[in-house]
Amino acid sequence: MTTDALTALTSALPPASWSRDADEIAPHARDWRGRVQGDTPLLLKPGNTQEVSRILGICHDRRIAVLPQGGNTGLVGGSTPKGEVLISLKRMNAIRAVDPANDSLTCEAGAILETVQTAAREAGRLFPLSLGAQGSAMIGGLISTNAGGVHVLRYGMMRELVLGLEAVLPGGRVVSDLAGLRKDNTGYDLKQLFIGAEGTLGVVTGATLKLFARPASTAVAVAAVADPAAAVELLSLMKEQTGGVCAFELMPRIGLDLVVAHVPGSRHPLGREADWCVLIEVSSGEPDRAGLLMEHALENAFERGLVSDAVIAQSEAQAAEFWRLRESIPEGEKAHGKAAKHDVSVPVSRMAAFMAEAAGLAETELEDAMVIAFGHVGDGNVHFNIARRTPGAGDDFLAQAAPVTARLYDLVDRHNGSISAEHGIGTIKQSEFLQRKPLEVELMRAIKGVIDPHAIMNPRVLLG
Amino acid sequence: MTTDALTALTSALPPASWSRDADEIAPHARDWRGRVQGDTPLLLKPGNTQEVSRILGICHDRRIAVLPQGGNTGLVGGSTPKGEVLISLKRMNAIRAVDPANDSLTCEAGAILETVQTAAREAGRLFPLSLGAQGSAMIGGLISTNAGGVHVLRYGMMRELVLGLEAVLPGGRVVSDLAGLRKDNTGYDLKQLFIGAEGTLGVVTGATLKLFARPASTAVAVAAVADPAAAVELLSLMKEQTGGVCAFELMPRIGLDLVVAHVPGSRHPLGREADWCVLIEVSSGEPDRAGLLMEHALENAFERGLVSDAVIAQSEAQAAEFWRLRESIPEGEKAHGKAAKHDVSVPVSRMAAFMAEAAGLAETELEDAMVIAFGHVGDGNVHFNIARRTPGAGDDFLAQAAPVTARLYDLVDRHNGSISAEHGIGTIKQSEFLQRKPLEVELMRAIKGVIDPHAIMNPRVLLG
Repeated sequence: MTTDALTALTSALPPASWSRDADEIAPHARDWRGRVQGDTPLLLKPGNTQEVSRILGICHDRRIAVLPQGGNTGLVGGSTPKGEVLISLKRMNAIRAVDPANDSLTCEAGAILETVQTAAREAGRLFPLSLGAQGSAMIGGLISTNAGGVHVLRYGMMRELVLGLEAVLPGGRVVSDLAGLRKDNTGYDLKQLFIGAEGTLGVVTGATLKLFARPASTAVAVAAVADPAAAVELLSLMKEQTGGVCAFELMPRIGLDLVVAHVPGSRHPLGREADWCVLIEVSSGEPDRAGLLMEHALENAFERGLVSDAVIAQSEAQAAEFWRLRESIPEGEKAHGKAAKHDVSVPVSRMAAFMAEAAGLAETELEDAMVIAFGHVGDGNVHFNIARRTPGAGDDFLAQAAPVTARLYDLVDRHNGSISAEHGIGTIKQSEFLQRKPLEVELMRAIKGVIDPHAIMNPRVLLG
Repeated sequence: MTTDALTALTSALPPASWSRDADEIAPHARDWRGRVQGDTPLLLKPGNTQEVSRILGICHDRRIAVLPQGGNTGLVGGSTPKGEVLISLKRMNAIRAVDPANDSLTCEAGAILETVQTAAREAGRLFPLSLGAQGSAMIGGLISTNAGGVHVLRYGMMRELVLGLEAVLPGGRVVSDLAGLRKDNTGYDLKQLFIGAEGTLGVVTGATLKLFARPASTAVAVAAVADPAAAVELLSLMKEQTGGVCAFELMPRIGLDLVVAHVPGSRHPLGREADWCVLIEVSSGEPDRAGLLMEHALENAFERGLVSDAVIAQSEAQAAEFWRLRESIPEGEKAHGKAAKHDVSVPVSRMAAFMAEAAGLAETELEDAMVIAFGHVGDGNVHFNIARRTPGAGDDFLAQAAPVTARLYDLVDRHNGSISAEHGIGTIKQSEFLQRKPLEVELMRAIKGVIDPHAIMNPRVLLG
């Protein structure tokens, strides 16, 4: 990039809105998992939508490649610059308005998820998106990656939680719909393009999000099941008998073993007999009701032989402890050694067959392999990770596992699944994505071509 | 259209897949409300996706304009041909699969909504989309218009109920994703473009729809409120205290008067004292629970002075009677005379102010005006219809009302609303739409340009 181009940008902005300081840039140039080290000639930190507009005007005119970044918690290399100018939304973090009667909240793209959850709670409402990185992840990034998390089962992914967007297009024009309408059938729903686009069509600068009534009661339980097939059957039963399943997370004993071994203060909730557990969260609009619902449904599940043991959290602290176990599986796994990770989905009805075949594949193809498959089984989404049984696996193991990944994705295809359920494509899954969906990629590129004709927006990511 | 072009189409299809018979064509060429009389040189009735593909291949190559039609129950002139070749999906009406463990159902575009509801029920599940025309409306049309209806509050519009689509593009290529995945973050969500596109991008030929657990109990009540502001406040209370509001429909006394006068066997559920009523439907995952929830919440509403009178249906028959009153408002209105109809939305929090100003506008600008504003107030969507107080209004009244419509839409704009909440644009709202959203229209046209470069798909509708 020419000095001239950089000067055009810096001279168009107030000093607070850009930086070339290496120390300030460093954390923005490395990815969340520490696997990708990037670089950028210029960190832009716009303070408002007008500045973003000015930036994308200049970048469009001068063909300057731009990478937008939220909390930089992505897992697929989509927010790490390699020479692009970096736009961090971190200074645009205002909650603009909370409208309880409309069940909506409007904020800037840099607002942190936890802040939004808190603002909703203070207004007596719920913003249900919930995921491990919520203390860092920003709304704009969560929208641009269509984030998932643990409450998708009840409330949907980020796509379903967005009532409207404000986004700046390459060239600088602003499309904005922050009215918070629940119904608006006036043509193509353009906001849908920006949701999950991984910053390749423009910069999301603000959003109006859907809020919900807070549940009057919530219950959390851990139940032991024989296998993933029983877990799926239990899910149907819980849905039918409680009407309020918010989360349904698979936890293999092997994963809990790693948590207990490596995360201080953690213990198995049910002992070590069961090979598989599920963490279940049920909520109700009535006070003191969710626990009863959970109890009755689990009793039925016992009678049908679906569940061999279960414990319902007796306090909020115990519920939090159960959730901490679930959320600590990646940490336990990391302490054990490197693992080949796969965020995949299949129809819920095919989950059990897929898991069995995938485990067979991993164990046949890789010596000393240990499958740690956990997560959002209620959505048909499993984090299917392959580690080495012997601790301390390093990059050599990842290299060995690479061909298994390709075969695992073929297996996902045969089960009509997706090679990226919630993490997105970024750069890490790009080649697998491009070869699997040729017609769709052609259409996406055609659409990108008319919105970003000079291909300045996150050009290495997603469509490449 | 040349005879040659017609012959190219008919000779590419089996005899059962097309018709030039005037009697068979007639019902397809007139709109649901009988306001638009159209014509077509050829009715195509493809029996499968391959035939649709062949048709769109020929039409694309020869620049033949095409209008796709489902149940032809649209209200904005979007499915009435004016010289275009007509593709009716009526023969493609199979339910392809029901997958209860995945909570999904896959069907062809010509499946009728009521048939889909029944298939879901027989599998122990719920397909929640519900609207007046459900005995005729077809899934493909409901998707292409992003249909709403009475259960949007709880389950969302059609957009939120579609897991995947099969659609034929101009040129004949088929994009298909009928796996029924709940999570798939692999690039732009292309299906969103076809949902609500009013047939301007291609022909939807199949869909995988989201199913839900059936509520174990449901309660329906009619409650009298002082005004729309009280209705909105009551909505918040019901959401907070029941956790399961499925429908919340505003019914003005003036509308119920017309139903009672013109629809045999109907009567006011609460007498004639209250100027405004709401119909409330609450459901629960527990048997015999919804009635209790409704009762407690309504008691609280009484205590807070939000509700002056209420009746909870004591049987399914009585619940159906309440619903019939709501659904009969258009019939009562029609019997009274012609009315200027407006399907508009505003943020729920602005509903009361909007309604008051809009009623003031209508009554000031039109002599003998009577406002009949009813419907989905829980979604911020009201059918704001203006009739003449004196019965028997005809087309002269509609002509008088036309300038008021324009001013009403300006008022909608000032309240950050939409001039089409659920009915779409079609041809009837086209000029109002095109002038109100210039940047969005430009983007929509650019996207249409790359998917349908010869502009063969429903060319008079939406973008014009």
